[in-house]
Amino acid sequence: MKGILYGLGVGPGDPELLTLKAVRILKEADVIAVPDPTGTGGEKTALRIVEQYIQGKPQLLCPTPMLRDRSVVERCYDQSAGEIKALLDEGKTVAFITLGDPTVYSTYMYIHRRVLEKGGDARLVPGVPSFCAVAARLNTSLCEGKESLTIIPASHDAERFLDAPGNKVFMKGGRAVPELIARLEERDMLSHAAMVANCGMDNEQVWPDLRAERPAGGGYFSIVLVKEA
Amino acid sequence: MKGILYGLGVGPGDPELLTLKAVRILKEADVIAVPDPTGTGGEKTALRIVEQYIQGKPQLLCPTPMLRDRSVVERCYDQSAGEIKALLDEGKTVAFITLGDPTVYSTYMYIHRRVLEKGGDARLVPGVPSFCAVAARLNTSLCEGKESLTIIPASHDAERFLDAPGNKVFMKGGRAVPELIARLEERDMLSHAAMVANCGMDNEQVWPDLRAERPAGGGYFSIVLVKEA
Repeated sequence: MKGILYGLGVGPGDPELLTLKAVRILKEADVIAVPDPTGTGGEKTALRIVEQYIQGKPQLLCPTPMLRDRSVVERCYDQSAGEIKALLDEGKTVAFITLGDPTVYSTYMYIHRRVLEKGGDARLVPGVPSFCAVAARLNTSLCEGKESLTIIPASHDAERFLDAPGNKVFMKGGRAVPELIARLEERDMLSHAAMVANCGMDNEQVWPDLRAERPAGGGYFSIVLVKEA
Repeated sequence: MKGILYGLGVGPGDPELLTLKAVRILKEADVIAVPDPTGTGGEKTALRIVEQYIQGKPQLLCPTPMLRDRSVVERCYDQSAGEIKALLDEGKTVAFITLGDPTVYSTYMYIHRRVLEKGGDARLVPGVPSFCAVAARLNTSLCEGKESLTIIPASHDAERFLDAPGNKVFMKGGRAVPELIARLEERDMLSHAAMVANCGMDNEQVWPDLRAERPAGGGYFSIVLVKEA
């Protein structure tokens, strides 16, 4: 019997935000596939979230480098997809761990599609996305009633969406965060803007009011929530 | 010692999509608060998700009627907030169960804010939102790379967002679903539109390609995902 690949959302950082389904699949899986963006042994936060459930299981490191050279990146995805497909053909169950939810800006999807194209059985297991944890941390809603909510990759496209209607979440801010905050200030939008970095992790930082205090920079896991006035 | 109110996201329908944190708090809670939109004993889907963890616990029904008369609705919220605050003052822990994630279109937030205003300790516990489960069910992503994602309450504001850039999730479609599908067809957007009703529930229905087949109507739990071409 062929195995199954699960793209497993492990939530935003707090191991208690794993779903029961994620825990079951981690325990049942034969191999844990781990994204490795920096070539240093696998995404540390994702591994820390699941560590108590995967003791002794073989891990497959899947390089997911953050490079501009797409041909290198795509070769990495091709290689990982091939290795995973070979495991499925041996009847192995593979759980690929991915932070947050696998359908929201996850590198995993590039491997998922490749495995499907090769005829493998690849399925998605939803997880709590980071922006939901950020709103919970700020003790506020993302959207209510008639409000819309737009999720925006901050480093690519912040400017285009600043004047769009509705509430906004700027994700993956990185070095673009100070620039984003400056644009929000110009528009008088800082009074209903807040930021959380590394939500649910040991190095979590919260800026509930960006008028009062603002971050010096912004890491990859910085999320800015802006409510409509 | 005062008690704590938890606004507890129980996920989209599948009991296995509860988080470990939600299960722990359900087990620890003294009272389970249950939204009651129809006056018939509490939201059935939310109760079914948590039933095995709340055996024998007292339940507090909180009327959340879907009425146009806001004064009636607000009196209901006021009353529930008062009852919950009284429980907190007795030192009770209260878990208010809410489908999906509490920060995404949850009626609970109206009660949450009232309890905070009364000086109560009210906290949010994130859950898997329904749109993440819908994308997983469709085996596709919500957003990748540079794509934005807008969540839109379909019955209020579909038209305004149809021509906006990025991927779109239309929620709470209800009776507005056939109209939404007609608007998508006019714009030649049906080829990258899919719909799931009652995702993860016993009466789940999936339309992976709305060109091939479309629903006759749409319930409250219908979600339409439209990808940018």
